[in-house]
Amino acid sequence: MSQSPKIQHLTDLQKLVSLCKRRGFVFQSSEIYGGINACWDYGPLGVELKQNVKKAWWNAMTRRPDIEGLDAAILMHPLVWKASGHIDGFTDPLVDCKKCKSRFRGDQIPEGTKGCPNCGGELTEPRNFNLMFKTFMGPLEEEASIVYLRPETAQGIYVNFQNVQVTSRRKIPFGIAQIGKAFRNEITPGNFIFRTREFEQMEMQFFVKPGTDDQWMEKWKAWRMEWYLKYGFRKDNLRFHQHGEGELAHYAKAAFDIQYQFPIGWQELEGIHNRGGFDLGRHQEFSKKNLEYFEEASKEKYIPFVIETSAGCDRSLLASLCDAYREEGEADDLRTVLGFHPALAPVKVAFLPLSKKEELSGPTTKLQEEFIDEMHTQYDEASSIGKRYRRQDEIGTPLCVTFDFDSLNDKKVTVRHRDTMAQDRVDMTQLKEYVRNKLKNF
Amino acid sequence: MSQSPKIQHLTDLQKLVSLCKRRGFVFQSSEIYGGINACWDYGPLGVELKQNVKKAWWNAMTRRPDIEGLDAAILMHPLVWKASGHIDGFTDPLVDCKKCKSRFRGDQIPEGTKGCPNCGGELTEPRNFNLMFKTFMGPLEEEASIVYLRPETAQGIYVNFQNVQVTSRRKIPFGIAQIGKAFRNEITPGNFIFRTREFEQMEMQFFVKPGTDDQWMEKWKAWRMEWYLKYGFRKDNLRFHQHGEGELAHYAKAAFDIQYQFPIGWQELEGIHNRGGFDLGRHQEFSKKNLEYFEEASKEKYIPFVIETSAGCDRSLLASLCDAYREEGEADDLRTVLGFHPALAPVKVAFLPLSKKEELSGPTTKLQEEFIDEMHTQYDEASSIGKRYRRQDEIGTPLCVTFDFDSLNDKKVTVRHRDTMAQDRVDMTQLKEYVRNKLKNF
Repeated sequence: MSQSPKIQHLTDLQKLVSLCKRRGFVFQSSEIYGGINACWDYGPLGVELKQNVKKAWWNAMTRRPDIEGLDAAILMHPLVWKASGHIDGFTDPLVDCKKCKSRFRGDQIPEGTKGCPNCGGELTEPRNFNLMFKTFMGPLEEEASIVYLRPETAQGIYVNFQNVQVTSRRKIPFGIAQIGKAFRNEITPGNFIFRTREFEQMEMQFFVKPGTDDQWMEKWKAWRMEWYLKYGFRKDNLRFHQHGEGELAHYAKAAFDIQYQFPIGWQELEGIHNRGGFDLGRHQEFSKKNLEYFEEASKEKYIPFVIETSAGCDRSLLASLCDAYREEGEADDLRTVLGFHPALAPVKVAFLPLSKKEELSGPTTKLQEEFIDEMHTQYDEASSIGKRYRRQDEIGTPLCVTFDFDSLNDKKVTVRHRDTMAQDRVDMTQLKEYVRNKLKNF
Repeated sequence: MSQSPKIQHLTDLQKLVSLCKRRGFVFQSSEIYGGINACWDYGPLGVELKQNVKKAWWNAMTRRPDIEGLDAAILMHPLVWKASGHIDGFTDPLVDCKKCKSRFRGDQIPEGTKGCPNCGGELTEPRNFNLMFKTFMGPLEEEASIVYLRPETAQGIYVNFQNVQVTSRRKIPFGIAQIGKAFRNEITPGNFIFRTREFEQMEMQFFVKPGTDDQWMEKWKAWRMEWYLKYGFRKDNLRFHQHGEGELAHYAKAAFDIQYQFPIGWQELEGIHNRGGFDLGRHQEFSKKNLEYFEEASKEKYIPFVIETSAGCDRSLLASLCDAYREEGEADDLRTVLGFHPALAPVKVAFLPLSKKEELSGPTTKLQEEFIDEMHTQYDEASSIGKRYRRQDEIGTPLCVTFDFDSLNDKKVTVRHRDTMAQDRVDMTQLKEYVRNKLKNF
């Protein structure tokens, strides 16, 4: 084939933000009203990508023989957040500039700084600001009816531990997996969908016998890293970061982040935590329900320890976009490609008639219809075939199927590959099997 | 085969609530803390069922050539709710009993009633109570930062209409589909997951040229009814209800409900509304952005009309449970079955070794592993094979695969069918194809 083109990976997040807007991956929320700070909407391609990320995670978890799924409500009993420590401790230090009224997170201002970064004005002492959104359930705004939007999905798993264990007749070790929205009233959100006030988590809590926690921690570290690699993330962009003594959360015995090298630097993608017996212990204390597990074999009773894997869905999605983005070639012939793993690609196959003429568009549409039960596809007849290939490259479609005038006679179509740009001529009766195989063995 | 058994459908919702709890479909939220009013969590089987309902709807919508998907944030700009009419008009009349402090929805108290239904005490005059949950974005609880939890997903579609239309290069008519959480501070929630304060909607807004709206309304009425029938809902339990003059919402030109016959009576499952030009017109007015559509062919500019199909995900799920529930036989030999359509069934196939012995359990597990990439399965080795079949019937598993001692020699397994209880002996090399076919042509 041709010589390898010059390849440029993503270095500027803004380039991606612009592509996401232009092609319908991510829009600013309420944009026609000037937007709402740090909230984003997923457009037609973004919602497909997000569903694919979630499906990849969900199946990796719940199709295991030792994990059950769960979908708990966002609104929970307020005592849950007392027990978890969030009401008392889930705070950031808030600092104001007395002059320009700008607001900062105290821990992000370099030590020894006297004046405000914007105008040099005097800064207030840090105050503790709780990051939970609160709202009022029931008709009156009384103290008694304050509820919180959950700041994490994990607590929904802990309070359901016993219900799940009993109804699914599970023995320890086993895990519970959940995907859902969480909300944090961040003081300084930003960097596109990296840090938002409304976001989606993919969390799994694995319940183990105390004493076996260290070995399960090692297993889950390995499995979670493998998951990113399986979906095509470049190895160089992934690393572990171990939390030092000072970094460890109050509940954690040990903690590792899987970090990704975003254009804004290395940042957390997922946390893997050994939470010990903290969570079930606290809920036992506050709910006054016995949450001990009885182990048949040894006749022992104990509070299970928890290994948690906590991934941000929006962050995984952002990382998948950053990782997939590449520009090939030179300025006058630049090809922008989102080189997604086919399981993540929002559109699997594009169907393109060589011309808009009914004699081509009719059979192309008919061909597409054979695929729609099985995968998300697109049909495009506007502008030249070259331009249409580039449009599909830019949204990461692995395969394009072109129906031309010869197809009317030889019953074959051209299949064009996103990454190599190679083209195969495939018999239409073989097309489905061909596509299935190519998507599977990419 | 045997004579048809006596069949008893669901008449008492409480029976279903109890099955849902016992088998892990639905738990009360925060149950160990005494629960939180009208919030429910989906357990291991419930979350699979819910995902199946959502997938069936999502594919029926977004795999059409004229519909795009969207996933907008729950938190939106407050002006959205001013434009939509929710801040001023989304209220229920609230009435208190002065004696026992009970609280009622004014419109649910029969006219002419003087005393409180509970204690006979005097009732207050009705006050308007806004059903939107409010919260505060940003660190201070100032008036300026009040935001609402969306009470419907539809507005997320309207404010993104232009972004979606332009980026996906759509021509009218086309639709935008969305699934997501919404919140309503109901005064009197209840009936299990029928009316909850946190719920999930499946909404599609179809944008059409004014004048063509009546014909699109008819089409969508038919298509939506077909959808329920396709997934096996009994025809006798479904009907249309047309809103009379007095029932019509302020935005609606015409409205039909698809109602389902729950054990609590005929209730709304989905609304199909001709909303005219109200929505985009109001957002144009309040955002001061031109939201008109330019029609190439006729060179006309207009505000598109909207046909909305608005379904409750939790309600569809509840209806699917009610509809599937049946008891077969007599008291001493009663079989409880959830006769789900296989696309909705949480577990597609159960793998059962005839005995716990490693020589059977080993190969059964191995056989199961061949299926886990493709479908959600279960493995069960506890108690007699008859009891295990009944356990699978009760959660609606269409097929059970039993590996027995003969299987070791003849390489065949027994496939047992939920509805007929018929058993086939199938060669293991043919099993996958057999299962695929049975699930497809149920």
